[in-house]
Amino acid sequence: MYLLNGESKHTIELSDRGFQYGDGVFETIEVLNGTPVFLNQHLHRLFKGCDRLLIPCPDKELLQKEAFQLAKGSSSAVLKLIITRGSGGRGYRQPDTIQPTRLFSLHPFPDYPETFSLHGINARFCDIRLGLNPYLAGIKHMNRLEQVMARSEWNHSDVQEGLMMDINGNVVEGTMSNVFVVKGKVLYTPAIEQCGVEGILRDIVIWLAKKQQVKVIEKTMTKEEIFFADELFVTNSIIGIWPIKKINIQKYDVGLLTQQLQRLFLAFKQEEFHDC
Amino acid sequence: MYLLNGESKHTIELSDRGFQYGDGVFETIEVLNGTPVFLNQHLHRLFKGCDRLLIPCPDKELLQKEAFQLAKGSSSAVLKLIITRGSGGRGYRQPDTIQPTRLFSLHPFPDYPETFSLHGINARFCDIRLGLNPYLAGIKHMNRLEQVMARSEWNHSDVQEGLMMDINGNVVEGTMSNVFVVKGKVLYTPAIEQCGVEGILRDIVIWLAKKQQVKVIEKTMTKEEIFFADELFVTNSIIGIWPIKKINIQKYDVGLLTQQLQRLFLAFKQEEFHDC
Repeated sequence: MYLLNGESKHTIELSDRGFQYGDGVFETIEVLNGTPVFLNQHLHRLFKGCDRLLIPCPDKELLQKEAFQLAKGSSSAVLKLIITRGSGGRGYRQPDTIQPTRLFSLHPFPDYPETFSLHGINARFCDIRLGLNPYLAGIKHMNRLEQVMARSEWNHSDVQEGLMMDINGNVVEGTMSNVFVVKGKVLYTPAIEQCGVEGILRDIVIWLAKKQQVKVIEKTMTKEEIFFADELFVTNSIIGIWPIKKINIQKYDVGLLTQQLQRLFLAFKQEEFHDC
Repeated sequence: MYLLNGESKHTIELSDRGFQYGDGVFETIEVLNGTPVFLNQHLHRLFKGCDRLLIPCPDKELLQKEAFQLAKGSSSAVLKLIITRGSGGRGYRQPDTIQPTRLFSLHPFPDYPETFSLHGINARFCDIRLGLNPYLAGIKHMNRLEQVMARSEWNHSDVQEGLMMDINGNVVEGTMSNVFVVKGKVLYTPAIEQCGVEGILRDIVIWLAKKQQVKVIEKTMTKEEIFFADELFVTNSIIGIWPIKKINIQKYDVGLLTQQLQRLFLAFKQEEFHDC
């Protein structure tokens, strides 16, 4: 189901710069009982991305209204929101007047078994590396060939996520998630100044951990630090927090801090949800 | 004018991965007297790009037929060809069966004054840098936010092109062109192993120069090497060869080798054109 600039449509102008150049940003939002979860946080990141890409973002109230309009009646779904620079002529130069495109689409919630949250997933390291570019780092923009190519590296259903390294060999994130390491009493997550996406769940997990007086360090992280982690987990807005139980031949227990953060996260989500 | 999978249309499915993720490749081809110029070379690069991105490319004969179909009757135009991975579900994972999308579009030829070729253009250095990623380097893919952002840095018509550096400060290419430096009797052009596009004109110019026994070196190039060039020019399939007469405050003459390559290129184009 699509809502394109407020209208129910399933096609878009070929001249749209989202199609021509990946010239836009997006959000992937969980829908629970007709409510887009963490919508404010998603819109906040969307506005930040638009600011950095110089795309005039549509009005917040309008986006909120349309998000609820599409989510209404769905007990569980995924809502995707795309903002592009709108239609333009051939060539990279922006049109003099930008009329951004806004697109909401509603998708089925993936059929993930509960065991992924409870007992963890299997992960792998991807071959394709993330390029370094501080100018675009953090933004959830529509240039996603690296993730597409990384996700194409495996096809068997017994591996749920692939971790990606940058061209220097540092671990940055999963193809669709951010990654966290517990070592001793400290929570580590890769810095995303050079590449990677600033995940909504990443921010929430960091905030929840700090509230519990857990030391959180964002830093450049090596493959070795992943291998020698006490606990390892990935996060995104749809999966929540998934422990990693195995990466290549290395095995991990679902640790206490991971479980604590899962509980805190669910409680926080419940709270936010009731405030809507 | 558009030809989408063989049909005259102006919209595309919102689920197309070209729109969702910039998941595709493109070519920008000159049309002269109803003929797409250097079509074989463009299709060759397109196939190479599809191969690297694991997109099953449509049949060459079909693409040739449709290219001529759209170009027919145009004395001078720009033909853009896009191949995407086609429609797919939400998420980076490729669909099990890929039905690639092919799109031809015909655009007016830009109104460039003859003086750009004859007396040169003004250029600038862009602030936004190119990210490094050998996995995607060379391919003319649809993830073009870096170029879009670089081209947004200036709006005055007295600057025709911006040169882009990579995150290490090495000069790689223009926002829409490749760049060449003449120093002494040697022709230099930036290596494109880490980032940048392998331009059709870039390949032709290298080949033409070598045929004339001119030494051609592809290497990492600094901003200083640009400043201290004897001759400086940029190339692409639409502009051909444009000398740079000024970049920032540095001025250049339109040099002898640049003029020779312009003549050789026009002759070669004429030859190819008659072979069509």
